[in-house]
Amino acid sequence: MAVNPPRLKPPLPVPGFRVGIASCGVKSPELRGKRTDLTLIATDVNCHAAGVFTKNMFRAACVKLGERVIGRQGTQVRGIVVSSGNANAGVGIHEEGWARMMIDAAAQSIHVRFKQILSASTGVIGTPFPIERICEGMQQAAGSLSPGHWEAAADAIRTTDTFAKWASRKVGDYTITGICKGSGMIHPNMATMLAFIATDAPLAADSLQHILKRVVDKSFNSISVDGDTSTNDTVYLLSSGIGLGIPELAHTDEFEAALGAVCVELAQMIVRDGEGVSRFITINVEGAKNEDDARTVGRAIAVSLLVKTAFAGGDANWGRILSAIGNSGITIETHRISLRANNVTIVQCGNPHPDYRDEDGMAVFANDEFTLYVCLGMGEASATVWTGDLTHEYIRINAEYRT
Amino acid sequence: MAVNPPRLKPPLPVPGFRVGIASCGVKSPELRGKRTDLTLIATDVNCHAAGVFTKNMFRAACVKLGERVIGRQGTQVRGIVVSSGNANAGVGIHEEGWARMMIDAAAQSIHVRFKQILSASTGVIGTPFPIERICEGMQQAAGSLSPGHWEAAADAIRTTDTFAKWASRKVGDYTITGICKGSGMIHPNMATMLAFIATDAPLAADSLQHILKRVVDKSFNSISVDGDTSTNDTVYLLSSGIGLGIPELAHTDEFEAALGAVCVELAQMIVRDGEGVSRFITINVEGAKNEDDARTVGRAIAVSLLVKTAFAGGDANWGRILSAIGNSGITIETHRISLRANNVTIVQCGNPHPDYRDEDGMAVFANDEFTLYVCLGMGEASATVWTGDLTHEYIRINAEYRT
Repeated sequence: MAVNPPRLKPPLPVPGFRVGIASCGVKSPELRGKRTDLTLIATDVNCHAAGVFTKNMFRAACVKLGERVIGRQGTQVRGIVVSSGNANAGVGIHEEGWARMMIDAAAQSIHVRFKQILSASTGVIGTPFPIERICEGMQQAAGSLSPGHWEAAADAIRTTDTFAKWASRKVGDYTITGICKGSGMIHPNMATMLAFIATDAPLAADSLQHILKRVVDKSFNSISVDGDTSTNDTVYLLSSGIGLGIPELAHTDEFEAALGAVCVELAQMIVRDGEGVSRFITINVEGAKNEDDARTVGRAIAVSLLVKTAFAGGDANWGRILSAIGNSGITIETHRISLRANNVTIVQCGNPHPDYRDEDGMAVFANDEFTLYVCLGMGEASATVWTGDLTHEYIRINAEYRT
Repeated sequence: MAVNPPRLKPPLPVPGFRVGIASCGVKSPELRGKRTDLTLIATDVNCHAAGVFTKNMFRAACVKLGERVIGRQGTQVRGIVVSSGNANAGVGIHEEGWARMMIDAAAQSIHVRFKQILSASTGVIGTPFPIERICEGMQQAAGSLSPGHWEAAADAIRTTDTFAKWASRKVGDYTITGICKGSGMIHPNMATMLAFIATDAPLAADSLQHILKRVVDKSFNSISVDGDTSTNDTVYLLSSGIGLGIPELAHTDEFEAALGAVCVELAQMIVRDGEGVSRFITINVEGAKNEDDARTVGRAIAVSLLVKTAFAGGDANWGRILSAIGNSGITIETHRISLRANNVTIVQCGNPHPDYRDEDGMAVFANDEFTLYVCLGMGEASATVWTGDLTHEYIRINAEYRT
């Protein structure tokens, strides 16, 4: 059902990292041995770490614990443990204890300290966390640790994703490999987005954190499937370089560009695999006063129900797009706005272009991928946002799951 | 398809006001004589007027012209002219000229000045405004002016509304009568919301404006069908009292309460008749620091796609409701949050209530009307928001209209 999922080359191993997986039956005991659902990313040396978390005020225990690790022990991280099938969220007073037990089991299995392990969980909420089955599976995960298991990990962190998502890049002698999972949880759907990125490029935690924040804004924070942010959304970036004894990078621009490319690739895959998505739309906003304004306008278009349903219908309903721009909350001057779909100019300086014909617009919107170009005419900044359409399938998945 | 549309008593005439209607074939010439689509609300005396307009930065010419009238001649208004079937929006350089011609025709037909007439248009956008047919119909509208035509006007301002919407209240010796139209335009849908309210309660324009702003926040701005705001949304309130020689009201509290009741009634009808809406949900947020926070939380729940699709499925998916609260942008403390659906307590102090059973929640959510009670535990303020669910029918209407 995904829109043109890319054919991926195998992910590259990253010096200092090994990955293990296990099948615990996280979601239900019957699934034990049938699908992998526990992932352990272990590092041979202390890693510098950065994290970006959900802004939702309801945050799962794994998020709260992870934030503390990043804040206090962000230079001594030794691994990440991930369960999929149960989010360990909305379960009240037990939540933090269960999250700690999973971290503890992971730390013991690879002989490091509790405070050196990050964790993430995704899946059903409001259901007791199967901590016994997870702890039982931890040795299997630790026993399978291998530098070549990134693809298996990308598979194991999935919930309802229809394909496993990973991306790799070389930057000079160094490697960046990331895996992620997107929208789609089993019961109920909270659209948890998780991404884990490993590199041996030698960067210190502070530097990593600044770079990750900027890169996430331009990738994972520039996509929208349904505008909702989950309680568990997390992106972690770990660097083994300094721990491996490599001197810290003096110039980080190339690394940031490569990391950006990895994150954009991963983020686009999440949109392509969004629930019920049948079209993949790139929204390119130019001529903004600053990048934040540009992204705000792009997101306003991407989350408008009227725009998203027009996308679903293949309808070049440009009036809805202008209206969404007008609703974005940023200051615009309507007589400066231009709108183009692929190479078809629809609106110029706030007016319908005299040569525009509805058939031409409809021909572009009929594609399963196209690009909207919005020019605000207010400045020089730009941003790109990726989104999908809103289809019957989305309603079916989200309205009828428990019925 | 509307959810329990109310059986309405006939609207009350308002001293100083007469209403006329005509059938011009605004949407297409074939409809001339078949359905009414031009409305003229004329006043016998100068009226004090207030207006609240869309916050969308793309605003139709009728909105821009109306704002100027309210700002400059808000004490000498003599009428409102409304066309339905064509929004006169997105048509570029002709838009303002056409809007002025409609106002001019209305002013001439009742022998008042151009600057004494407010206007509104709703319907298709991006299609030339049929100004000749509208001007031809104006005499018919003026000829039919009668104090008793409010119901006919409520009918004539409709586009795809499935029922005509009006409400009346007496406050002491005075009358308030309002009409409105809600979501649903023919081609394409911009969900224009229009409301026109008449009273003979003697209030000056300044006072009316303050009262209208407060009342609209608690009524029309407290509903959500799809979170989009159109280019033409307008609420006008006209008072004939001072023009009729009645001394200005010294105390306005009673009037404000009655006006509030009229506007809440009208706003609820718009939700009940929202596109594809199959359930009507009242969201009551208490315990907020201030009313704005309470309304922000209510609206965050009301616009969440995951919540609205859960409503559609009759699914008591309280995790999505908590997540929407957490995403509202206001500061909350999760351990203070409580959630109740009708009389079923689901969450208490941030934890699932020990006695809560999923069957009990599902039984409430299976109704076509129910109330969610959210308590934030942060203060004393409250607000109520009304919303509908997001169904296949919404997607069908909005994705497939032009295909």
